[in-house]
Amino acid sequence: MLPFVADLRLVDHHCHGVLRADVDRTGFEEVLTEADQVSPLGTTLFDSSIGLAVRRWCAPVLDLDPHASAEDYLARRRSLGAAEVNRAFLAAADVDTYLVDGGLSPELLLDYRELAAVTGARSFEVVRLERLAEEVVTEGCTAAGFASEVRARLAASTAVGAKSIAAYRVGLALRPERPSDAEVAEAAGRWLARGGRCADEVLTRFLVWAALDRRLPVQFHVGYGDSDADLHRCDPLLLTDFLRATAGLGVPVMLLHNYPFHRNAGYLAQVFPHVFVDLGLTTHNVGHQAGRVLAEALEIVPFGKFLFSSDAYGLAELYHLGVLLFRRALSDFLASAMASGDLVEADAVRIAHLIGYENARRAYRLD
Amino acid sequence: MLPFVADLRLVDHHCHGVLRADVDRTGFEEVLTEADQVSPLGTTLFDSSIGLAVRRWCAPVLDLDPHASAEDYLARRRSLGAAEVNRAFLAAADVDTYLVDGGLSPELLLDYRELAAVTGARSFEVVRLERLAEEVVTEGCTAAGFASEVRARLAASTAVGAKSIAAYRVGLALRPERPSDAEVAEAAGRWLARGGRCADEVLTRFLVWAALDRRLPVQFHVGYGDSDADLHRCDPLLLTDFLRATAGLGVPVMLLHNYPFHRNAGYLAQVFPHVFVDLGLTTHNVGHQAGRVLAEALEIVPFGKFLFSSDAYGLAELYHLGVLLFRRALSDFLASAMASGDLVEADAVRIAHLIGYENARRAYRLD
Amino acid sequence: MLPFVADLRLVDHHCHGVLRADVDRTGFEEVLTEADQVSPLGTTLFDSSIGLAVRRWCAPVLDLDPHASAEDYLARRRSLGAAEVNRAFLAAADVDTYLVDGGLSPELLLDYRELAAVTGARSFEVVRLERLAEEVVTEGCTAAGFASEVRARLAASTAVGAKSIAAYRVGLALRPERPSDAEVAEAAGRWLARGGRCADEVLTRFLVWAALDRRLPVQFHVGYGDSDADLHRCDPLLLTDFLRATAGLGVPVMLLHNYPFHRNAGYLAQVFPHVFVDLGLTTHNVGHQAGRVLAEALEIVPFGKFLFSSDAYGLAELYHLGVLLFRRALSDFLASAMASGDLVEADAVRIAHLIGYENARRAYRLD
Repeated sequence: MLPFVADLRLVDHHCHGVLRADVDRTGFEEVLTEADQVSPLGTTLFDSSIGLAVRRWCAPVLDLDPHASAEDYLARRRSLGAAEVNRAFLAAADVDTYLVDGGLSPELLLDYRELAAVTGARSFEVVRLERLAEEVVTEGCTAAGFASEVRARLAASTAVGAKSIAAYRVGLALRPERPSDAEVAEAAGRWLARGGRCADEVLTRFLVWAALDRRLPVQFHVGYGDSDADLHRCDPLLLTDFLRATAGLGVPVMLLHNYPFHRNAGYLAQVFPHVFVDLGLTTHNVGHQAGRVLAEALEIVPFGKFLFSSDAYGLAELYHLGVLLFRRALSDFLASAMASGDLVEADAVRIAHLIGYENARRAYRLD
Repeated sequence: MLPFVADLRLVDHHCHGVLRADVDRTGFEEVLTEADQVSPLGTTLFDSSIGLAVRRWCAPVLDLDPHASAEDYLARRRSLGAAEVNRAFLAAADVDTYLVDGGLSPELLLDYRELAAVTGARSFEVVRLERLAEEVVTEGCTAAGFASEVRARLAASTAVGAKSIAAYRVGLALRPERPSDAEVAEAAGRWLARGGRCADEVLTRFLVWAALDRRLPVQFHVGYGDSDADLHRCDPLLLTDFLRATAGLGVPVMLLHNYPFHRNAGYLAQVFPHVFVDLGLTTHNVGHQAGRVLAEALEIVPFGKFLFSSDAYGLAELYHLGVLLFRRALSDFLASAMASGDLVEADAVRIAHLIGYENARRAYRLD
Repeated sequence: MLPFVADLRLVDHHCHGVLRADVDRTGFEEVLTEADQVSPLGTTLFDSSIGLAVRRWCAPVLDLDPHASAEDYLARRRSLGAAEVNRAFLAAADVDTYLVDGGLSPELLLDYRELAAVTGARSFEVVRLERLAEEVVTEGCTAAGFASEVRARLAASTAVGAKSIAAYRVGLALRPERPSDAEVAEAAGRWLARGGRCADEVLTRFLVWAALDRRLPVQFHVGYGDSDADLHRCDPLLLTDFLRATAGLGVPVMLLHNYPFHRNAGYLAQVFPHVFVDLGLTTHNVGHQAGRVLAEALEIVPFGKFLFSSDAYGLAELYHLGVLLFRRALSDFLASAMASGDLVEADAVRIAHLIGYENARRAYRLD
């Protein structure tokens, strides 16, 4: 690996918390990929790119030989206990700054403050908009008061960014208009009458506009995720009208993950001034093939618009793999271009720093 | 090539029959790719990835030098005659078990029993659902009796799987619900009044549910095929609602070919417990580039959910090329991961066996 | 680079003119990629694949060291002046024949005759259909006379092909029918009443059919372009019905650029007899990664249906980079196949000639 990539200071601009408790084999496999179960029709999920990566790269962190069997690996993991496992992998990941979306299953996970305490890293909160909306409603807000209550909480928030799971709730084909307060009140009224999760196009759109108006960069889940979403409603190109409408605000929009639409995302980052992209959980899920996927993602994206994130969730291994496989892929990309004479080292160092650190620092105004 | 891939025992889980009769040059080119004619605006279809592969890999099987000209190749082929050509390529393919969809132009092709006789391989039938429906109607079934007659034939069938060409007839955006017998009778009535091919969303959906209820794995044509289908209606993601609805049955759904949506298919195989995928005719059509396409297809698919098929149709060459280019691509994939330390040989051997044989054996319950 | 690719005679079957005047840094960056501005949220657009390519490959043409800084490069460019810069890069590009779409900002650019004068190359006009329509209307045509006036101008034109920007104006999902003169008159009437640009599905469709009826090959902008178009309405598969309807005319349809849908485009070129494809501006925008994208584009396309174009616009650098990166990518593709034994040199020479020259000569009947 190129030394300046091995030592690259990293902002992980999108991750979740790590599980507090131990998991058994079934629990481990259920969190390992986006499958929510181990299928009796298939085989173990260790038979996958990410499974191979866990055995190769994570086993040595737990003092096992590389490529230890799944059984040996999980036995060792159990014997160490969750706290030690978490400490070991987070230390190996060696991230400078975490931006944490703590809105998914917070009761099971370390929050952003605890992550900072375990790692010694800087850590910031990213506020999950749909969860914020659900808290507002749970706490008794009226339909007429919904918009102002959301705005008040965003105004008071110390979060450095916001996250939307529009892809899961209403799809990414958001209408471009900023909804009026009357529209929001009407939609909130429908939701209060119906109950359940926040899954209304008007409300989603309002939440995103409210965050942008507060000048919070907004992260969108895009592309690859679990089967709760319809992947064909998660193509980033569906955001085109919305991006055209919000370009003038000058507030970053972050397209997360994007696989297998990462080339589409790169296009959007090139042509819209406020769009940034990453590969998120794609990197660790494709394992040793991350180099090719990263190279595709970097074809037309300006290097000033690409970020690192792990999108790690739950398993401490994913923080380590996200970082390691990203470093490896980025090093391969840069080293290959240097070897063919297409890039000189000074530029490679600068591009690595942009992607690993500086773009996130600038977009989220982290100083 | 890795020795354990060169010797890998293979189930070809989706192919058609081989032509009984000789073909002239025009006939050969018309079957070689998915183009149904040689365009006067282009050049010979030997000027293509698959054309190069025929000249390199098939010429020696007919005792010509590799890269023999198209003219010499076709002259040699004619002089040997169809029976000898078929014997030579099927022997070279050396497949252990064929699963044969005999429902397309059966009068021109060897059926699954004849394929077994020529090759010495095991051979099973895959029943083509739209053809079964058309036979039922041709033989005088009433609208009211259609559903029960289809079910009776499926119950009596010795086929190990079913095949649907929904992509060609109604597109893949099937509604999720199992249609009621009343809906089926009504749709069958419309069809009987209209005549023609089975091309009705309700009937297609019924056929697939009937096969799944009979616990027959259902193969869907997905992606790449001839110009009869609209490729943008063949994205496997369009099946998402249907897959969500059928996941609980525990019966495999096989997504065939998938190119250029093979990453989308891999996603579905990861997140839905009953979904399996292959590359089918993509492998021989992309020729010497099969390695990259296979690597992409294997990025996130669990290795217990990927199958081999040739989708060979008509030309005996396609059985040989399907196998050879698949072995080569798989060997390259595994050897590359071994060379970079990402995979050890014992795992490579096991993964090759899963993909080449074991996944099909398990999914189709071939023992 | 393979010598026969380095020396390959080229038809650039789709480009625009080069800027007459000097540009400052902002002006240069605004034309460099498809972004219409340099975002204050990002960094310079020199931080991109194409930016690296300019510094590596264009600096030496202006007698600077490879990888000169952007500042030094632009200072040198300014000191030479637009005329000398244009001369130097067009000489370096060394294209045999240009086909020029002069319909975008003609007042700023050299037209096809001037391009021939500067370069000594052959040069032909490609008529931009939407501009032709707008000229007809500007010059006072009535709704009833629109169709015949368009046809008369096409009949009188010396252009060797026509270009449609349907993707930008109405999307690519054109209906298949040739519109009647009554429909055209009605649509023209609506347009005359409304004013503005030609952006009506009936009129777009009429223009394309009129060109095909005149036996002019029609170029469609497809895929990658600036943010004026919605990229999800630019997938070439949306043209399927239209292509099915026009296949029988025997007049070529050229799908330009296609990224990131280049595999979809290759499919269409395989299954429809009149479809040809290229990579256009993709090649220089992906810079040193052009080899992989070209290889993907060549997976299933018949080699008799793939063309070279630069789609260069404005900056003389783009003519040079379009050619150079294309030669390099094609050489890598062919050399790699030769190294693995999949291709012999005589075939490689022939395929290079088809793609670089002969396919365009045949499709546009350039002799």
